Amino acid sequence: MSNVLQQLAEILEQRKLESADKSYVASLYAKGTNTILKKIGEEAAETIIAAKDGDKQQIIYETADLWFHCMVLLAEQNLSPDDVLNELQRRFDLSGLDEKAQRTQK
Amino acid sequence: MSNVLQQLAEILEQRKLESADKSYVASLYAKGTNTILKKIGEEAAETIIAAKDGDKQQIIYETADLWFHCMVLLAEQNLSPDDVLNELQRRFDLSGLDEKAQRTQK
Amino acid sequence: MSNVLQQLAEILEQRKLESADKSYVASLYAKGTNTILKKIGEEAAETIIAAKDGDKQQIIYETADLWFHCMVLLAEQNLSPDDVLNELQRRFDLSGLDEKAQRTQK
Amino acid sequence: MSNVLQQLAEILEQRKLESADKSYVASLYAKGTNTILKKIGEEAAETIIAAKDGDKQQIIYETADLWFHCMVLLAEQNLSPDDVLNELQRRFDLSGLDEKAQRTQK
Repeated sequence: MSNVLQQLAEILEQRKLESADKSYVASLYAKGTNTILKKIGEEAAETIIAAKDGDKQQIIYETADLWFHCMVLLAEQNLSPDDVLNELQRRFDLSGLDEKAQRTQK
Repeated sequence: MSNVLQQLAEILEQRKLESADKSYVASLYAKGTNTILKKIGEEAAETIIAAKDGDKQQIIYETADLWFHCMVLLAEQNLSPDDVLNELQRRFDLSGLDEKAQRTQK
Repeated sequence: MSNVLQQLAEILEQRKLESADKSYVASLYAKGTNTILKKIGEEAAETIIAAKDGDKQQIIYETADLWFHCMVLLAEQNLSPDDVLNELQRRFDLSGLDEKAQRTQK
Repeated sequence: MSNVLQQLAEILEQRKLESADKSYVASLYAKGTNTILKKIGEEAAETIIAAKDGDKQQIIYETADLWFHCMVLLAEQNLSPDDVLNELQRRFDLSGLDEKAQRTQK
């Protein structure tokens, strides 16, 4: 798995032990799931807006923000980015099955 | 970077050469940016709903869907998941700077 | 209250008695709250995209879609558009209180 | 049309003449379309969360917030809530056509 995502997951885990006034992530945990979910909705909107503006640097920035807050949700739910990457791997794995065939099973 | 994300990025790049009626991803490229962005909005909503339902398997599934469609956007914009991971790395890197301090610069 | 919203609320109430295969609204009720909420997320994204495209006709169309699916949610929850209009009235009522002052109380 | 929506539209029009530091709405106009659109994305997420929490008062509150920010977008685009209500009327009008039939034309 990604070293960056792994490292970030470890940092997010450590933040569970810190006080909400010293860490943005700890403040998200303290405010609870709804606050984390609002951020996911907000960052998705900002990613859409950045793409419509055709601003590649902003697309990167907002996608990072979106993925970051998804990572906070995963950590808060005691899930790991590995769970997500394994799901992506499963869909596109080496069996050569076309992803469209898999989509239609959804 | 993540082998899974790297492999997926390569698959998404290959899909640019395929016909829209054979590949879900190629059909997204053909329909254009707005269709990809609608999917990002939709999957963000589904991630929120899965989390509110407290369904961990569904959270993983919908987060994978959300990241997947972000990856399609990145590919369509000739960007790479590395760009996003590097941005995440930059924010949380080894310098020990607290992420909250960086957030306030936003 | 708006005659249009009132009439629409009555139609949405009648749809509760119809079969899901004859009415789009009845099919939404049958699929349940999550399906209605996904539509709200989707239509919000489409409203954002329409605005970024600067397409006024599309902004009207997507905003109507968004408000319509909010109306379906209200009906499904046995709420009325009057409840929403009363809340808007309360915030901006004749007392002359500036809306900003009220926002800061949120 | 709704007296409440009509009155609110007039207030939103007046706010175009006010300074951004005295009115929340004027500050939205000053920040620009992207800020208004982010609020629409944010309030849609909050409506979804309120519905999943089964909190009727919060559903009303967040739907009002969502419609309010749509009204700000309409005003900023020199559109009127009448445009949206007319579109809803058109879809569900007296012709007796089932809304589902109209949906399939989309």
